[in-house]
Amino acid sequence: MASIKMVGFDADDTLWRSQDYFDRAQRDFEGIIAAYVNGDARTAERLYAVEKANLAVFGYGVKGMALSMIEAAIDITGGRISAADVHRIVSLAKDMLRHPVELLPGVREAVEAVAAELPVVMITKGDLFHQEAKVRDSGMSSLFRRIEIVSEKDVPTYRRLLEEFAIAPSEFVMVGNSLRSDIAPVLEIGGWGMHLPYHLTWEHEREAVVSAADGTRLRTLESAAELPAALRSVAAA
Amino acid sequence: MASIKMVGFDADDTLWRSQDYFDRAQRDFEGIIAAYVNGDARTAERLYAVEKANLAVFGYGVKGMALSMIEAAIDITGGRISAADVHRIVSLAKDMLRHPVELLPGVREAVEAVAAELPVVMITKGDLFHQEAKVRDSGMSSLFRRIEIVSEKDVPTYRRLLEEFAIAPSEFVMVGNSLRSDIAPVLEIGGWGMHLPYHLTWEHEREAVVSAADGTRLRTLESAAELPAALRSVAAA
Repeated sequence: MASIKMVGFDADDTLWRSQDYFDRAQRDFEGIIAAYVNGDARTAERLYAVEKANLAVFGYGVKGMALSMIEAAIDITGGRISAADVHRIVSLAKDMLRHPVELLPGVREAVEAVAAELPVVMITKGDLFHQEAKVRDSGMSSLFRRIEIVSEKDVPTYRRLLEEFAIAPSEFVMVGNSLRSDIAPVLEIGGWGMHLPYHLTWEHEREAVVSAADGTRLRTLESAAELPAALRSVAAA
Repeated sequence: MASIKMVGFDADDTLWRSQDYFDRAQRDFEGIIAAYVNGDARTAERLYAVEKANLAVFGYGVKGMALSMIEAAIDITGGRISAADVHRIVSLAKDMLRHPVELLPGVREAVEAVAAELPVVMITKGDLFHQEAKVRDSGMSSLFRRIEIVSEKDVPTYRRLLEEFAIAPSEFVMVGNSLRSDIAPVLEIGGWGMHLPYHLTWEHEREAVVSAADGTRLRTLESAAELPAALRSVAAA
């Protein structure tokens, strides 16, 4: 019998839509750049290279994305990008930051059902200010005992948080869409993972290795509605 | 006798230099714009207006500053700003984000002296990713029992944190340079404030009202070196 004492939820693309907006901004960016280049400028590829190179200085989030887009735009257009088009890139970021939260189907009911049984916490990565705005806008903050916004979801982060919560890893289940950020590090320290794949997941977030031994503590769900039953099956495992 | 059980430290302009870099970036920005405008373009004033309007969408921090600078530059130059100069603004932000941490004089010794007697925590506002990088770079993280990066330092934030720490306000001393963020809200909930003024403080952070009654729990220090003795005098109060 596994004794589960706390359930953690990822937020972006687990509770609410996020990657869709990044993908849409990326398409808009490619549209802006297309007016300056002939044929295949490998715009998406070159933007990704700039974003990856800037990750260590900007971190994740919309504001860093916008600054990387501006840098990439200047590079790809050979400095020909107009001020008006630079402003359109800034506006892409503002639109994303102001976008109302769209909860994913069945999520509120699933979190409410779990929260009626066990303490739930939110563990989300990214820009503090934007994540807090989304938490407020979601109307779900009162369901969570703690809301932790962290810059990286890795083994040291989960260890530190579980220590603060006074919960052993074997008593903890993490629910999320990213194998890399939500599942693999929690399995690695001896916790449980409920993988709720999202149809869009940034390439970076799919890279993860789960050992066969750890895999016994991993469940893959098709929808949030399956969560309460999956948690009961883990408690009975 | 006041029983002090925990000491909180602000970080920017209390432990290490911060406002200097913002001021320098602002001067560099004004230099970039000066090449496009004749006479008094009220550059600083117009940038501040854009920053203030964007605070609700970008929050505090370097990346939001850079995006506001780019917007202001496009506006002030009537769209004539070159891509190369836009890139210089992005580079101002990158330089700030990568700048090595410069601890203020006597700070390490003061925090070490306090930490030898009492649990200390860091409570700092701003961009999560940048603040974490500075904490790592400072080499001081092991002195702090908890490091809390928050988006706003107000009464509800301090109440929530002290509840998490299981510390009564009357047992808590907050040390910082900002009357608005570090001192006034802590005094208001019944805690103690040690004000360590910095020669540069953003106007926004100086605005605060402290009542005469609360003022009995406020001490103003000239340097970090006075901190251990000031704490002892509070404990004896």
